[in-house]
Amino acid sequence: MSKVEGQRARPELAEGSKAKIEKVNFAEKFALFSQHWSPKIVARMNDYEFKLVKIQGDFVWHKHDDTDEVFIVLEGEMQIDFRDGPVHLKAGELLVVPKNLEHKPYAEQECRIMLVEPTGVVNTGDAGGELTAKVDYV
Amino acid sequence: MSKVEGQRARPELAEGSKAKIEKVNFAEKFALFSQHWSPKIVARMNDYEFKLVKIQGDFVWHKHDDTDEVFIVLEGEMQIDFRDGPVHLKAGELLVVPKNLEHKPYAEQECRIMLVEPTGVVNTGDAGGELTAKVDYV
Repeated sequence: MSKVEGQRARPELAEGSKAKIEKVNFAEKFALFSQHWSPKIVARMNDYEFKLVKIQGDFVWHKHDDTDEVFIVLEGEMQIDFRDGPVHLKAGELLVVPKNLEHKPYAEQECRIMLVEPTGVVNTGDAGGELTAKVDYV
Repeated sequence: MSKVEGQRARPELAEGSKAKIEKVNFAEKFALFSQHWSPKIVARMNDYEFKLVKIQGDFVWHKHDDTDEVFIVLEGEMQIDFRDGPVHLKAGELLVVPKNLEHKPYAEQECRIMLVEPTGVVNTGDAGGELTAKVDYV
Protein backbone atom coordinates (compact mmCIF):
# COMPACT_ATOMS: atom_id res chain seq x y z
CA MET A 1 0.00 0.00 0.00
CA SER A 2 1.22 3.49 -0.59
CA LYS A 3 1.38 6.33 1.89
CA VAL A 4 -0.48 9.60 1.64
CA GLU A 5 2.02 12.43 1.59
CA GLY A 6 1.88 15.19 4.14
CA GLN A 7 -0.03 13.27 6.77
CA ARG A 8 0.01 15.01 10.14
CA ALA A 9 1.86 13.56 13.07
CA ARG A 10 -0.20 11.77 15.67
CA PRO A 11 -1.57 14.50 17.97
CA GLU A 12 -0.89 12.45 21.08
CA LEU A 13 2.77 12.21 20.15
CA ALA A 14 3.02 15.88 19.30
CA GLU A 15 1.70 16.97 22.66
CA GLY A 16 4.09 15.15 24.95
CA SER A 17 6.09 12.03 25.49
CA LYS A 18 3.53 10.30 27.69
CA ALA A 19 0.80 8.48 25.79
CA LYS A 20 -2.56 10.13 26.49
CA ILE A 21 -5.59 8.08 27.39
CA GLU A 22 -8.30 9.99 25.63
CA LYS A 23 -11.59 8.52 24.55
CA VAL A 24 -13.17 9.21 21.17
CA ASN A 25 -16.84 10.21 20.97
CA PHE A 26 -18.03 9.48 17.44
CA ALA A 27 -20.83 12.09 17.40
CA GLU A 28 -18.46 14.83 18.58
CA LYS A 29 -15.94 13.92 15.91
CA PHE A 30 -18.56 13.79 13.13
CA ALA A 31 -19.67 17.31 14.11
CA LEU A 32 -16.22 18.61 13.15
CA PHE A 33 -16.38 17.95 9.41
CA SER A 34 -18.90 17.70 6.60
CA GLN A 35 -17.03 16.59 3.49
CA HIS A 36 -18.02 13.27 1.97
CA TRP A 37 -15.52 10.50 1.18
CA SER A 38 -12.84 12.16 3.29
CA PRO A 39 -11.70 9.75 6.04
CA LYS A 40 -10.63 11.34 9.32
CA ILE A 41 -8.34 9.44 11.68
CA VAL A 42 -9.73 9.32 15.23
CA ALA A 43 -7.59 6.63 16.80
CA ARG A 44 -4.56 4.50 16.24
CA MET A 45 -3.70 1.08 17.67
CA ASN A 46 -0.32 -0.48 16.91
CA ASP A 47 0.05 0.20 13.16
CA TYR A 48 -3.67 0.38 12.43
CA GLU A 49 -5.95 3.40 12.12
CA PHE A 50 -9.63 3.97 12.92
CA LYS A 51 -11.17 6.51 10.53
CA LEU A 52 -14.59 8.15 10.52
CA VAL A 53 -16.11 8.90 7.12
CA LYS A 54 -19.31 10.55 5.92
CA ILE A 55 -20.36 9.05 2.61
CA GLN A 56 -23.06 9.83 0.08
CA GLY A 57 -23.41 8.88 -3.57
CA ASP A 58 -21.05 6.64 -5.50
CA PHE A 59 -17.42 6.00 -4.75
CA VAL A 60 -15.07 4.43 -7.34
CA TRP A 61 -14.40 0.77 -8.02
CA HIS A 62 -11.08 -0.09 -6.41
CA LYS A 63 -9.19 -2.71 -4.44
CA HIS A 64 -6.44 -2.81 -1.85
CA ASP A 65 -3.68 -5.18 -2.91
CA ASP A 66 -2.09 -5.66 0.49
CA THR A 67 -4.82 -5.50 3.12
CA ASP A 68 -8.31 -6.40 4.18
CA GLU A 69 -10.51 -3.43 5.09
CA VAL A 70 -13.22 -3.21 7.75
CA PHE A 71 -16.40 -1.16 7.32
CA ILE A 72 -18.56 -0.49 10.39
CA VAL A 73 -21.80 1.44 9.86
CA LEU A 74 -22.51 3.83 12.74
CA GLU A 75 -25.49 5.76 11.35
CA GLY A 76 -27.61 5.27 8.24
CA GLU A 77 -27.40 2.72 5.46
CA MET A 78 -24.97 1.97 2.66
CA GLN A 79 -24.11 -0.74 0.25
CA ILE A 80 -20.86 -2.15 -1.00
CA ASP A 81 -20.99 -3.37 -4.57
CA PHE A 82 -18.86 -6.34 -5.51
CA ARG A 83 -18.55 -7.76 -9.03
CA ASP A 84 -20.83 -10.58 -7.80
CA GLY A 85 -23.46 -8.22 -6.40
CA PRO A 86 -24.07 -5.78 -3.57
CA VAL A 87 -24.03 -6.21 0.22
CA HIS A 88 -26.37 -3.87 2.10
CA LEU A 89 -25.23 -2.57 5.47
CA LYS A 90 -27.03 -0.57 8.15
CA ALA A 91 -26.10 0.87 11.54
CA GLY A 92 -24.78 -1.87 13.82
CA GLU A 93 -23.29 -3.94 11.02
CA LEU A 94 -19.71 -4.70 10.00
CA LEU A 95 -18.17 -6.06 6.83
CA VAL A 96 -14.62 -7.19 6.10
CA VAL A 97 -13.66 -6.55 2.48
CA PRO A 98 -10.91 -9.08 1.71
CA LYS A 99 -7.70 -7.77 0.21
CA ASN A 100 -7.41 -7.68 -3.53
CA LEU A 101 -11.18 -7.77 -4.07
CA GLU A 102 -12.77 -5.02 -6.16
CA HIS A 103 -15.50 -3.10 -4.39
CA LYS A 104 -17.45 0.14 -4.69
CA PRO A 105 -19.11 1.78 -1.67
CA TYR A 106 -22.38 3.63 -2.23
CA ALA A 107 -24.94 5.43 -0.07
CA GLU A 108 -28.20 6.95 -1.23
CA GLN A 109 -28.48 9.21 1.84
CA GLU A 110 -25.60 10.42 3.95
CA CYS A 111 -24.21 7.53 5.97
CA ARG A 112 -21.66 7.62 8.77
CA ILE A 113 -19.14 4.84 8.95
CA MET A 114 -15.87 3.83 10.57
CA LEU A 115 -13.04 2.19 8.65
CA VAL A 116 -10.29 0.10 10.20
CA GLU A 117 -7.16 -0.48 8.17
CA PRO A 118 -3.38 -0.34 8.38
CA THR A 119 -1.72 3.06 8.64
CA GLY A 120 -1.25 4.74 5.29
CA VAL A 121 -3.88 2.95 3.21
CA VAL A 122 -5.16 5.18 0.40
CA ASN A 123 -8.93 5.39 0.18
CA THR A 124 -9.10 4.79 -3.58
CA GLY A 125 -6.68 1.85 -3.45
CA ASP A 126 -5.37 0.96 -6.92
CA ALA A 127 -7.81 3.29 -8.72
CA GLY A 128 -6.55 6.76 -7.73
CA GLY A 129 -8.40 9.72 -9.22
CA GLU A 130 -10.10 12.81 -7.87
CA LEU A 131 -11.69 11.06 -4.87
CA THR A 132 -8.27 10.20 -3.45
CA ALA A 133 -8.21 11.90 -0.07
CA LYS A 134 -5.44 13.27 2.08
CA VAL A 135 -6.14 11.63 5.41
CA ASP A 136 -5.86 13.77 8.53
CA TYR A 137 -6.67 13.45 12.17
CA VAL A 138 -9.84 15.18 13.34
CA MET B 1 1.29 -12.45 23.56
CA SER B 2 0.32 -16.06 24.07
CA LYS B 3 -2.22 -18.05 22.13
CA VAL B 4 -5.36 -19.58 23.55
CA GLU B 5 -5.30 -23.32 22.96
CA GLY B 6 -8.07 -25.06 21.12
CA GLN B 7 -9.31 -22.06 19.19
CA ARG B 8 -11.64 -23.04 16.36
CA ALA B 9 -10.65 -22.59 12.74
CA ARG B 10 -12.10 -19.59 10.93
CA PRO B 11 -15.58 -20.65 9.79
CA GLU B 12 -15.16 -18.97 6.43
CA LEU B 13 -12.09 -21.03 5.71
CA ALA B 14 -13.72 -24.23 6.87
CA GLU B 15 -16.62 -23.84 4.49
CA GLY B 16 -14.75 -23.50 1.23
CA SER B 17 -11.70 -22.12 -0.42
CA LYS B 18 -13.33 -18.91 -1.66
CA ALA B 19 -13.44 -16.12 0.92
CA LYS B 20 -17.03 -15.37 1.85
CA ILE B 21 -18.32 -11.83 1.99
CA GLU B 22 -20.65 -12.01 4.94
CA LYS B 23 -21.68 -9.06 7.03
CA VAL B 24 -21.87 -9.15 10.82
CA ASN B 25 -24.95 -7.83 12.59
CA PHE B 26 -23.97 -7.02 16.17
CA ALA B 27 -27.47 -7.47 17.65
CA GLU B 28 -27.86 -10.89 16.02
CA LYS B 29 -24.48 -12.00 17.34
CA PHE B 30 -25.16 -10.73 20.87
CA ALA B 31 -28.39 -12.76 20.90
CA LEU B 32 -26.34 -15.95 20.59
CA PHE B 33 -24.59 -15.82 23.96
CA SER B 34 -25.13 -14.53 27.47
CA GLN B 35 -21.90 -15.17 29.42
CA HIS B 36 -20.06 -12.14 30.73
CA TRP B 37 -16.36 -11.50 30.10
CA SER B 38 -16.25 -14.12 27.34
CA PRO B 39 -15.14 -12.48 24.08
CA LYS B 40 -16.60 -13.93 20.87
CA ILE B 41 -14.81 -13.43 17.56
CA VAL B 42 -17.13 -12.06 14.87
CA ALA B 43 -14.66 -10.95 12.20
CA ARG B 44 -11.05 -11.08 11.23
CA MET B 45 -9.01 -8.65 9.13
CA ASN B 46 -5.41 -9.50 8.30
CA ASP B 47 -4.05 -10.76 11.64
CA TYR B 48 -6.52 -8.82 13.80
CA GLU B 49 -9.76 -9.94 15.38
CA PHE B 50 -13.01 -8.14 16.20
CA LYS B 51 -14.63 -9.59 19.32
CA LEU B 52 -18.02 -8.91 20.91
CA VAL B 53 -18.19 -9.08 24.70
CA LYS B 54 -20.94 -8.69 27.29
CA ILE B 55 -19.51 -7.33 30.50
CA GLN B 56 -20.87 -6.70 33.98
CA GLY B 57 -19.12 -6.23 37.29
CA ASP B 58 -15.36 -6.09 37.81
CA PHE B 59 -12.71 -7.60 35.61
CA VAL B 60 -9.11 -8.08 36.82
CA TRP B 61 -6.23 -5.63 36.68
CA HIS B 62 -4.01 -6.67 33.78
CA LYS B 63 -1.93 -5.41 30.87
CA HIS B 64 -0.95 -6.59 27.43
CA ASP B 65 2.81 -6.44 26.98
CA ASP B 66 2.85 -6.55 23.21
CA THR B 67 -0.18 -4.72 21.90
CA ASP B 68 -2.56 -1.81 22.19
CA GLU B 69 -6.21 -2.77 22.65
CA VAL B 70 -9.31 -1.00 21.34
CA PHE B 71 -12.59 -0.83 23.28
CA ILE B 72 -15.73 0.31 21.43
CA VAL B 73 -18.93 0.59 23.46
CA LEU B 74 -21.98 -0.52 21.44
CA GLU B 75 -24.66 -0.50 24.15
CA GLY B 76 -24.63 0.72 27.73
CA GLU B 77 -21.90 2.25 29.83
CA MET B 78 -18.65 1.05 31.31
CA GLN B 79 -15.48 2.38 32.79
CA ILE B 80 -11.88 1.43 32.46
CA ASP B 81 -9.82 2.01 35.58
CA PHE B 82 -6.21 3.01 35.18
CA ARG B 83 -3.78 3.48 38.06
CA ASP B 84 -4.21 7.25 37.46
CA GLY B 85 -8.01 7.10 37.56
CA PRO B 86 -11.02 5.88 35.57
CA VAL B 87 -12.21 6.71 32.05
CA HIS B 88 -15.99 6.47 31.58
CA LEU B 89 -17.28 5.21 28.24
CA LYS B 90 -20.79 5.03 26.80
CA ALA B 91 -22.31 3.79 23.54
CA GLY B 92 -20.68 5.53 20.58
CA GLU B 93 -17.32 5.91 22.25
CA LEU B 94 -13.94 4.28 21.66
CA LEU B 95 -10.78 4.05 23.73
CA VAL B 96 -7.33 2.78 22.86
CA VAL B 97 -5.58 1.21 25.83
CA PRO B 98 -1.84 1.53 25.12
CA LYS B 99 0.25 -1.60 25.39
CA ASN B 100 1.89 -2.35 28.69
CA LEU B 101 -0.52 -0.14 30.65
CA GLU B 102 -2.42 -1.69 33.56
CA HIS B 103 -6.20 -1.40 33.29
CA LYS B 104 -9.35 -2.91 34.77
CA PRO B 105 -12.67 -2.82 32.91
CA TYR B 106 -15.84 -2.47 34.97
CA ALA B 107 -19.56 -2.11 34.25
CA GLU B 108 -22.30 -1.57 36.81
CA GLN B 109 -25.05 -2.77 34.45
CA GLU B 110 -24.55 -5.16 31.54
CA CYS B 111 -22.67 -3.38 28.77
CA ARG B 112 -22.03 -4.59 25.22
CA ILE B 113 -18.68 -3.82 23.69
CA MET B 114 -16.42 -4.70 20.78
CA LEU B 115 -12.71 -5.31 21.20
CA VAL B 116 -10.15 -5.03 18.40
CA GLU B 117 -6.79 -6.67 18.94
CA PRO B 118 -4.28 -8.97 17.27
CA THR B 119 -5.17 -12.62 16.83
CA GLY B 120 -4.49 -14.71 19.91
CA VAL B 121 -4.52 -12.02 22.60
CA VAL B 122 -5.60 -13.43 25.96
CA ASN B 123 -8.32 -11.41 27.70
CA THR B 124 -6.61 -11.35 31.07
CA GLY B 125 -3.20 -10.40 29.62
CA ASP B 126 -0.40 -10.93 32.12
CA ALA B 127 -2.78 -11.60 35.02
CA GLY B 128 -4.28 -14.98 34.12
CA GLY B 129 -6.75 -16.47 36.60
CA GLU B 130 -10.29 -17.75 36.48
CA LEU B 131 -11.58 -15.02 34.15
CA THR B 132 -9.22 -16.14 31.37
CA ALA B 133 -11.53 -17.07 28.52
CA LYS B 134 -11.21 -19.51 25.67
CA VAL B 135 -12.06 -17.32 22.68
CA ASP B 136 -14.35 -18.78 20.02
CA TYR B 137 -16.17 -17.55 16.99
CA VAL B 138 -19.89 -16.94 17.43
